[in-house]
Amino acid sequence: MRMSELSTATGLPVATLKYYLREGLLNAGTATAVNQASYGDGHVRRARLVRALMELGNLQLADIKRVVAAVDDESVPLHDAFGVAQDAMVPPRDRSDDAYRRAFEDVDAFVTRHKLRVRPDAQVRGMLADALVAMRSGGWELDLAAFDERMPAVVAQAVAELGGIPAEGREAQMEASVIGTISYEVAISALRRLALEHASWRRFGR
Amino acid sequence: MRMSELSTATGLPVATLKYYLREGLLNAGTATAVNQASYGDGHVRRARLVRALMELGNLQLADIKRVVAAVDDESVPLHDAFGVAQDAMVPPRDRSDDAYRRAFEDVDAFVTRHKLRVRPDAQVRGMLADALVAMRSGGWELDLAAFDERMPAVVAQAVAELGGIPAEGREAQMEASVIGTISYEVAISALRRLALEHASWRRFGR
Repeated sequence: MRMSELSTATGLPVATLKYYLREGLLNAGTATAVNQASYGDGHVRRARLVRALMELGNLQLADIKRVVAAVDDESVPLHDAFGVAQDAMVPPRDRSDDAYRRAFEDVDAFVTRHKLRVRPDAQVRGMLADALVAMRSGGWELDLAAFDERMPAVVAQAVAELGGIPAEGREAQMEASVIGTISYEVAISALRRLALEHASWRRFGR
Repeated sequence: MRMSELSTATGLPVATLKYYLREGLLNAGTATAVNQASYGDGHVRRARLVRALMELGNLQLADIKRVVAAVDDESVPLHDAFGVAQDAMVPPRDRSDDAYRRAFEDVDAFVTRHKLRVRPDAQVRGMLADALVAMRSGGWELDLAAFDERMPAVVAQAVAELGGIPAEGREAQMEASVIGTISYEVAISALRRLALEHASWRRFGR
């Protein structure tokens, strides 16, 4: 398909697609004439992945490039490529002070007691620590033990979600994993916020 | 306290505090001498609020200003000020095409059937629509009915969370509400991602 058709298929403006091409987020199409190229389904899928990372995942350009590189490098096993994508989705931050040291201890203990197979250096540990540090800096306690009861259900849900990923096709697998992770997260956060507005109305709004 | 002590109390560099002051996110201290001012507990709380909105909430400067203005304007009832903060936490986006029209219908039906008191123009509706549109654009269905069973528990949790907000003190109430909303959200997303990495290891990692 031509660039204009790729735009229709993805819902992305031509200017955005050209930006993706320029930044190497989207591979060049097959040249068909001077200044004309042809694009395929792979381009549609890739454009969708980049868009989700950018808009829903709020990722920086450099991090999107890392994810895309992990998708393309077939020597990286799939599980490891998921890890790269997961790490890229956590905003970098200085997490070295005492408050973080304490938070990381709590996070590591939580991972251990739930027997989770999570890399020791997975960035998501820092993300959970961010939440603990923010709450504690406000003088509130956020005790991870409060999530102990709920965690087995969260794991069961994650296993079911991952079960929905196709058995083959690396690009499709990565796309399903990344878009699924982000979309569900946004959905769950939005549901929580709907409930919070309702709760605020009940307590303060009448 | 002096600027240097405010920096110690908040854990924020002096340069960051000066930036907050320059942008009007933090009120000026009481002048004590030429080029010297004194700050109080109110400044500590405000700096903490701004930091949480910026770092955890990923908010733009203009949106943080809207939240801060709603905190300060005591003629805005508390529940409405929460609404301003909630709206500011949803990234603006063009949500006008057919895919969004269908998604908004699903969101509105969900809100109605769960009898949620949520403003018709609350931005969080668009956030939930974002998740639906992203999933559907990838060819997957995300049916909100899948969340029907879980929603009463989410509402009960939100009511309990809001119950933890102090009965008085507008600044403290807003701070507790905003930091609580964002921190819990980050924590819950992080727990989900821990579970997903574990699930990926089970399915693809061995």
